[in-house]
Amino acid sequence: MNHSTCDTDTPANDLSSDLLYDITCMSKTVKRIAVLGSTGSIGQQTLEVVRALPHRFQVIGLAAGKNTALLARQIDEFKPDFVYRQDESTCLADTKYETLSLEEIACHPEVDTVVIATSGKAGLSPTLAAVKAGKNVALANKESLVMAGEIITSEAKRNGARILPIDSEHSAIWQCLSGETQPATRIILTASGGPFRHYSLTQLNKVTAEQALKHPTWQMGEKVTIDSATLMNKGLEVIEARWLFDMPIDNISILIHPQSIIHSMVEFTDGSIKAQLSYPDMRLPIQYALTYPERLPNEQLPRLDWRQIKELTFEPPALDTFPCLRLAIEAGKKEGTCPAVLCGADEIAVELFLSQCIKFTDIARLIERVLEEHKAVAHPDLEEIMAADDWARERVRQLATGESLC
Amino acid sequence: MNHSTCDTDTPANDLSSDLLYDITCMSKTVKRIAVLGSTGSIGQQTLEVVRALPHRFQVIGLAAGKNTALLARQIDEFKPDFVYRQDESTCLADTKYETLSLEEIACHPEVDTVVIATSGKAGLSPTLAAVKAGKNVALANKESLVMAGEIITSEAKRNGARILPIDSEHSAIWQCLSGETQPATRIILTASGGPFRHYSLTQLNKVTAEQALKHPTWQMGEKVTIDSATLMNKGLEVIEARWLFDMPIDNISILIHPQSIIHSMVEFTDGSIKAQLSYPDMRLPIQYALTYPERLPNEQLPRLDWRQIKELTFEPPALDTFPCLRLAIEAGKKEGTCPAVLCGADEIAVELFLSQCIKFTDIARLIERVLEEHKAVAHPDLEEIMAADDWARERVRQLATGESLC
Repeated sequence: MNHSTCDTDTPANDLSSDLLYDITCMSKTVKRIAVLGSTGSIGQQTLEVVRALPHRFQVIGLAAGKNTALLARQIDEFKPDFVYRQDESTCLADTKYETLSLEEIACHPEVDTVVIATSGKAGLSPTLAAVKAGKNVALANKESLVMAGEIITSEAKRNGARILPIDSEHSAIWQCLSGETQPATRIILTASGGPFRHYSLTQLNKVTAEQALKHPTWQMGEKVTIDSATLMNKGLEVIEARWLFDMPIDNISILIHPQSIIHSMVEFTDGSIKAQLSYPDMRLPIQYALTYPERLPNEQLPRLDWRQIKELTFEPPALDTFPCLRLAIEAGKKEGTCPAVLCGADEIAVELFLSQCIKFTDIARLIERVLEEHKAVAHPDLEEIMAADDWARERVRQLATGESLC
Repeated sequence: MNHSTCDTDTPANDLSSDLLYDITCMSKTVKRIAVLGSTGSIGQQTLEVVRALPHRFQVIGLAAGKNTALLARQIDEFKPDFVYRQDESTCLADTKYETLSLEEIACHPEVDTVVIATSGKAGLSPTLAAVKAGKNVALANKESLVMAGEIITSEAKRNGARILPIDSEHSAIWQCLSGETQPATRIILTASGGPFRHYSLTQLNKVTAEQALKHPTWQMGEKVTIDSATLMNKGLEVIEARWLFDMPIDNISILIHPQSIIHSMVEFTDGSIKAQLSYPDMRLPIQYALTYPERLPNEQLPRLDWRQIKELTFEPPALDTFPCLRLAIEAGKKEGTCPAVLCGADEIAVELFLSQCIKFTDIARLIERVLEEHKAVAHPDLEEIMAADDWARERVRQLATGESLC
């Protein structure tokens, strides 16, 4: 943890003093946050939370990719000290700021909490920089943990960094584990099932990008919306959960729950289960990660209206029609470079699908083929992980071209 | 808390050390428990938990009412040091034991945790004795808190006693509050709705005791089963929750959930909700109260099989057809001697219904009449509470006789 803003001494190795310290510290000070990926879906919602709780947070770092116009407005509004942008050709806003790399912002001494809201493998390097600097890392980027979970969690442990999950599912699990003195025995990850929950393989063959981008319960970025439609997203979450909560993949179950009200559940050694519920709204897990261990009132966050909720339903996932979930679980169990290959292959396959080069069902087929060809490296270093990812991306492109799909 | 079996020193006013101490203490020692009401439904299930975890618990006190034959078998099996029994005329078992009163067992220095599983107002006096002695009080008896919640919770606070709820609903709330640094903003008590959930008033008029004793999801004693059918049980639980969790009654909602899988929920200031789930089996909340803050594996406790659970449904309670719930909430809000009058009147009305003197719908009607007549005393002492209860019982009998019902 980074306590540079608080003067009190914290006794080492005392969890409760640490907790009390955190609360004291947070009530007295404004938390200084950097938002990497501030123009994306999670980034924008993070800034909404900051707007709703202006006395608790100060945005001192912003970083974005292509959406320069929105970044300029965000700089005008939040007046950050540090900015990263992909396109440096144009002048942004009248505000003075220092231009830094993603990694420099992520480990800057003045930053208390880094929100990693970039999508894809671009999140990995700043996540690693932040955990090495012992930051509070509010992590929305899936690829970091999926590709390099072993490295990131061990660096976090070594440097006293705290990874605060922003996914609704992992936030739910984290909330349910709160106060328990023993580890959980099972994690039950819920999944909406996406827009094609009851489709047959024949129907899935004809799915268009436009259809796949209409998620029934969540508003998200394009990549994660397609991953939700293939159930790859749930598979990546299984691997994330494995690292975040040190839980064997065999003890992680998937349950389709189309209403997206129960965000996940945890089972304990006595058979008791805890669940976390809310309407699907990413601002809640974002706010929890930012205010933890406190909770703060925020009138913009909707409260469940039980007069409207008549039923919550559950069904098993259809692994045969949604092979991406099976592929992810298998890659997660194999470990080593397999999850990186899964990630890289998926990112390109989704790109090819969105640009109408390949069919919806080709996504899983190409990923499976690439995973079969891959010669896995056990306990890889960062270079080996990146090489595996690069190879997988290139191989998906080759296969698609070879089949004259693109 | 009672730590007579553990030698380590506990620093005062340090919750986490206290917690660590508890864990250390419990891992090293056998917890010595007394079960008051050992032949009733909760008492028998408490002894089942002890049988499943024989290395963790030693039953050193047993107390029972009329079921002398079962008590004799329990004495043979558990060989307690102290026994209370209503009927002292016959000789029980070959085992040597000391005969004590309920209160003497509840505050005995050798008892670590007292399980109050007696039903009705007989639980009040031993509960008070146990909290005054600073015991861990595993409380299944509803009437204690409903009648004298103010006295019991203030005595518990003053003497460092810990009240560990055994009701499935209150155990769920307690589990959901674990680890939270701030109080909850709302409690959502779930209710099965009982066997007559969708009955009209006309149908309820014709309900027999035999029908009312068939609860759809829970196996319980007769009094609580009838209270579940009238929804009085849920009303009493609202008042219990008010005292156990210091929650205004206006912030306690009731939600009918016929499957009895979600045992209750808690809403926090950020709108996040936590729920606790399991099959309806009282052994889980009993075990949690006995092992807290640990959880222990127990193969006899069933685990939720999500392949079997297709849906969880919810509906609002029908306050018009089930007036007992409304009466309890009103009495709970009025406080003073009103909840004691509610309890006393209900106990006699249920008795009269079970002996076929009055109709199912007369239960609420008689209780309402008695509550209307009652001149409430604010912040009553124990004597005033007992007097109000006695008056209510007598008044229900008079009214029933006056109407020539009995």
